[in-house]
Order: sequence, then C-alpha cells, then structure tokens
Amino acid sequence: MRTTMKLDGADLLDLARGAAFLGTGGGGDPYVGRLMVQQCLDDGLTVEVIDPLDVPDDALVIPTAMMGAPTVLVEKIPSGEEAIASLRALEAHFGRRAFATMPIEIGGINSTIPLVVGARLGLPIVDADGMGRAFPELQMETFGVYGISGSPLCVTNEYGDSALIHGRDNKMMEWLARGAAIRMGGCAYIAEYGMSGADMKRTSIRNTLTLAMRIGRCLREAKDRHENPFDALLRLLPDTPYSYGRIIFKGKIVDMRRETRAGFSVGRARIEGLEGWDGLMEIEIQNENLIARLDGQVRAIVPDLICIMDSETAEPITTEQLRFGQRVTVLSVAVPAIMRSPEALDVFGPKGFGLTEPFTPIESIV
Amino acid sequence: MRTTMKLDGADLLDLARGAAFLGTGGGGDPYVGRLMVQQCLDDGLTVEVIDPLDVPDDALVIPTAMMGAPTVLVEKIPSGEEAIASLRALEAHFGRRAFATMPIEIGGINSTIPLVVGARLGLPIVDADGMGRAFPELQMETFGVYGISGSPLCVTNEYGDSALIHGRDNKMMEWLARGAAIRMGGCAYIAEYGMSGADMKRTSIRNTLTLAMRIGRCLREAKDRHENPFDALLRLLPDTPYSYGRIIFKGKIVDMRRETRAGFSVGRARIEGLEGWDGLMEIEIQNENLIARLDGQVRAIVPDLICIMDSETAEPITTEQLRFGQRVTVLSVAVPAIMRSPEALDVFGPKGFGLTEPFTPIESIV
Repeated sequence: MRTTMKLDGADLLDLARGAAFLGTGGGGDPYVGRLMVQQCLDDGLTVEVIDPLDVPDDALVIPTAMMGAPTVLVEKIPSGEEAIASLRALEAHFGRRAFATMPIEIGGINSTIPLVVGARLGLPIVDADGMGRAFPELQMETFGVYGISGSPLCVTNEYGDSALIHGRDNKMMEWLARGAAIRMGGCAYIAEYGMSGADMKRTSIRNTLTLAMRIGRCLREAKDRHENPFDALLRLLPDTPYSYGRIIFKGKIVDMRRETRAGFSVGRARIEGLEGWDGLMEIEIQNENLIARLDGQVRAIVPDLICIMDSETAEPITTEQLRFGQRVTVLSVAVPAIMRSPEALDVFGPKGFGLTEPFTPIESIV
Repeated sequence: MRTTMKLDGADLLDLARGAAFLGTGGGGDPYVGRLMVQQCLDDGLTVEVIDPLDVPDDALVIPTAMMGAPTVLVEKIPSGEEAIASLRALEAHFGRRAFATMPIEIGGINSTIPLVVGARLGLPIVDADGMGRAFPELQMETFGVYGISGSPLCVTNEYGDSALIHGRDNKMMEWLARGAAIRMGGCAYIAEYGMSGADMKRTSIRNTLTLAMRIGRCLREAKDRHENPFDALLRLLPDTPYSYGRIIFKGKIVDMRRETRAGFSVGRARIEGLEGWDGLMEIEIQNENLIARLDGQVRAIVPDLICIMDSETAEPITTEQLRFGQRVTVLSVAVPAIMRSPEALDVFGPKGFGLTEPFTPIESIV
C-alpha cells in the first residue's frame, strides 16, 4: 500500500518555519519558497508527499533545487520553470521519466522548490533529503557521501540559459555548477543526483519534510498555547532522528559582518550574553552557521545544527536577517547518525569547511 | 565529383607558419598543434581536407577547437581526445553523426585541432573557418554573425569534466563556456556551431586552410630562394580573398606589457622605429593584435590583420613570444568582404573590443 500526504496552506506555513530552523541560517528564505508553493495550491494543483519506503526500488528519482547566494535570491522570485527545465534535461539524459522529485536539502528555500516542481509536473515529492539541514555546496549531500554520482547535473536560469555538467567527482561538479550559476546571474536552478529508488532509500535522510512540518507546528502551537516554544521544541526532538538539542546561549547581537564572496555569503556574528548568560559568543557563517565559540571555546560545531532564533518570538533567523541589537537564543541540535559517520564528516564535517577543530557531538560538549 | 586533399608533414609545417601569420599574435602556438597532427600521420592516419563546396547541403558539420588563454596552453600539450569527446556530445544531442569537422578560426593552434579530430575519427576537415584569422571570443564567428546558433556547445577537459551549454545567444554561450574553461583549468576543448552543409557554405570563410598553407609555403620558398619573404608575401595576397597588404612599420620592441585577465592574454607592445621608420608604434593586444597606433594615429585596426614578424627571419611572432629588444616588421592585411559587412563589424569590429575608433580598411589608411 502506498500512502501519500497532500499538503495544504497551513502545512506550508509550518514547513517554512521548520525549514528556516533546519536551515541553520542558510538555504535562502523559505517564506519566498512558500509563496511559490501556495501559488500552486491556488492554481488547483496538488502537492503530494510520498514516504521514501513507498518508492519502488527501480524508480528514477531526480532531486531539484535552487543554487546560488541567498542574498541574490531574495531579490529574484523564481517561477519554478527553471528547475523543471533542469529536471527535463536529466530525464532526456537518462532516457526515461522521473517517478518523483525530492529536496537535496531540507533547510531554507530548497525544502520547497521540489514541491513546486512536483505540483506542476504531477509528480510526488519524496519525504527525505540529502543534507538533513542546509549546506553550502553540492558535494555535501549524503547521496554523494554514500556513493551516488551527482553528475550529470543540469543548471538553468530564468532566461533559459543552461549547462549540463559532468564532473570527474562531485566536488568538481559543484565547482563547475557554481561557476555557471554565478555567470548566469548569481542564482539558478538545478537537477542532480538522479538515482534509483533503492539508492535513494539507502543514502537519503528520511522523513525530513514531515520533520520540518512537525518543528514548525510545534513552535506555532506552543505560541498559540502561550507555552515556551523553546521548551516545546526541545521536548519534541527526542521523538525524532534529531534526538537531542539544547540552548547554548542567549544574548544580543553586538557585531555583524557579512559579504558575498565567490558566490557564497560569508560572515560572522558576535553575541554578548544576557539573561544570566555571560561572555561573548562568535558564530562563523558560510551560508550556514558553522561553528559557535564562547570566549574562544567551541560550544557547537558542524554538522550539528546551530540555530539562531529571536528570543521573543522564537522565529528562526536567517543569516541575511541578522541585525545589530537583535536579542537571540542559540540552539544546537544533534544530527542523525547517517550524517555523523566518518565518510560523512570527511565531506561536511569541520574540515570540509577548513575548520581545524574536530567534530564533537553536541551531547558530549559540557 | 568530390575532390579531397591529403596533407603530409611538409604541408603541416607550411600550415603552422601560415596559421601563425593569420593568428595576428593570438590563437596559441600553432607548432604545438602541428606536433599533434604529425603524431596522427606517424600513426598511419590520414588528414583529408575537403573543399566546402563538396560538402552536401544536408550534411552535419561540427567545428572543433581549443578554448582558453594561450599562455596556459603552452604548458599543456593536448591529446585530441577532449575535442573528440565534445564532438561526440554534440552528435548525441543532434541524434546523428557528423559528416565533417572544421576549424572555428584559422589563426594559431585552432587551425590544427580539427585536423587531429578528423584524422582520429576518419572524418574530412572542411577547408574553411569561422573567423578568417584568430579572435578571442566564440560569438566572433561569421557562423554567428550570419545567423547560426553556437549552442549547444560542449566543453571538455583532459580529466573528462564536461559541460553542454545552451546560451540564450552566442555571447551568453561564450560567457558560460569561458567560465567553464577557466574552472576546468584554464584551457579546454570545444565543439560548437553544429550546422548543415548549406549553412556552412553560406556563413564560413572559405578555403582558409589552404590559404594558410599557401602563406607558409610562400614564406618558406622565398627564404629558400634567398628572396625577400615580405615582398613575396605581399605579392601573393592579391591572388587570395585577402586582397591587399602592406608593411606599416619596422622597429625594435622597447616595452612589452602582458597579463592574463579573466581568461584572456591582455597587453601592449611598444615599438621604436628603425631602418628609416620614425616614431613609436603602440599595438594593443587582447589575445590578438587589435589596433596599431603610430604616435597616436591609427595605422591599422581590427578586423584587418596586424601581424608582427621577425625582421630577420620573417617568422610570425605570437603574443607570448614578443620580447624586449626584438627587431620586428609589422604588416597589415585586408580581410575578405564577408568579414567587413556591417553585421560582422558589429560583432568583431573595433566596438566589439571596446575601441572607440571606427573601422577603416587598411587600403584606405594613408
């Protein structure tokens, strides 16, 4: 029996909030993506989410996404046609139709791009992804970590410019696709890691679309009931593959540095303690929040989640929205085991970002 | 009746010298390319050149070339397999086999890359090209000037990395392909402007492979006979579509500036007059020699040829070989009418290079 779930407008709001949380600052503004999907619902289309275990082993699954600096994206609302063109190019390459699409990452706008593609093409969207959060580069997907080739990748922009890329490895694929996206205007739409249902089940992080919706719903309902949303969220986590989380700091942003460099948003936030939290926390950013140090001591480190939230509203804050003077609460959350294996840490652990500190699970940091 | 011409080692030497002349300083070192073709002959392969008028109207012709900064190329001798992979990708796209390949430009190494592809694949090489010289960018081809789409273009490097590019126009195609070539290591191999035999006949500059060989042979034979090679060359031109040429300066290089910028070799040569020639000639370079000014007055301007040759040996000197102290003779040569039409000048006339001076034919400059 194949069970599917049809999303409504309330689901999309929950998803956007949960994806902003899982984006750990990056991945673009999920509310822009939500508007795109809402338009699909308003057009009478169906957004049908399918459990990964219900995808046949021999089915072709083609993930779709946006690629580029989120700072550029905010100024350019996408239509969805670009990602569809990229998916069609991969179908032409494989000589067969896709059974489903899915997210490459669950953080930010890329949690919603495949929903638009699926709704417009009448394809189900697999409830799983390849990052379990947001990451800045395309080789940083569990698909690639566990042996799937990301190539061919197709990248398309709103003018129909496109490039079908084969890289000798997934890092070269990322390098060439990034260059194309930059020359296409800073933001473009991709299809990549075309794979069988069996490979998708083996290499993906499962049920993360529904996880994002649960996180969003949990925060919304706690606020509706006038409960503390941070407490509610931390109580929810043990029921999910993201088994543990805690608040690592509360304070006020006293310094914010941010620039776009080689297609990435790179920066650093400094937060001064408040409400009984002492010291200065410094969070380094490459699209996403990578490492949090308190007075020089590591308090949380990639790939575990580092989420900066508004202390008053409990809204997740993306990198672009961070401002001097904001009062914020910083959470860190443990990621699932599939994202902490030695192979996974080789690709998107600290050294994948040029950090010299070793990975230490958040639950082991005292 | 279809007439073809099989090239031998002596032809290749003449071709290399003639292509160095027609390269007007750019297009890479044709002697590197000659070695690649000689290797084909040594392997028992045939280099078969076909007249453009002998190509059937409905045949598929796929031009092949190298792309990148010539300064990088000098350090990387290509195998030919990269250009073949690009041609095969275009065949797959069109769903049919190529009848022939051909040069996109007749200057420098790109006069020989298609000979290697043709020899290795058993395809004839059309005696024609799309630049009638060398130019730095891929939209600067008569194919595009007269309506042919350069897309899809395939670019491949020696590691098998590749990108199949569709640009909204030929300039965007160039922009994306250039970015890919830079990220692939600075030098890669392309197939582009796949077209019918009829379109090739309408838009190409015909018989330029044999023209390059005639120029090379003329220079060689004049030296063998102890005649003045410059005089011999200027006597040959009226018999060709390059109907006019003259010496515009003789002198000594007193200053040479050269750098690689955004994938191009950009520079400037200053030449002080000798042998009765007074003043200071300044030649501006973007891969090729673009404009020659004598004490600030234009003496020759793109697309007419500006060729810097060794005053003693009459060897054409490429941009990379220009050195302080060299004694040089500068020739300018009129290009065929197909390269001087308003549409052609729009693309590769002075304004195509950001020069403010209008095009003035060399035969009208007093």
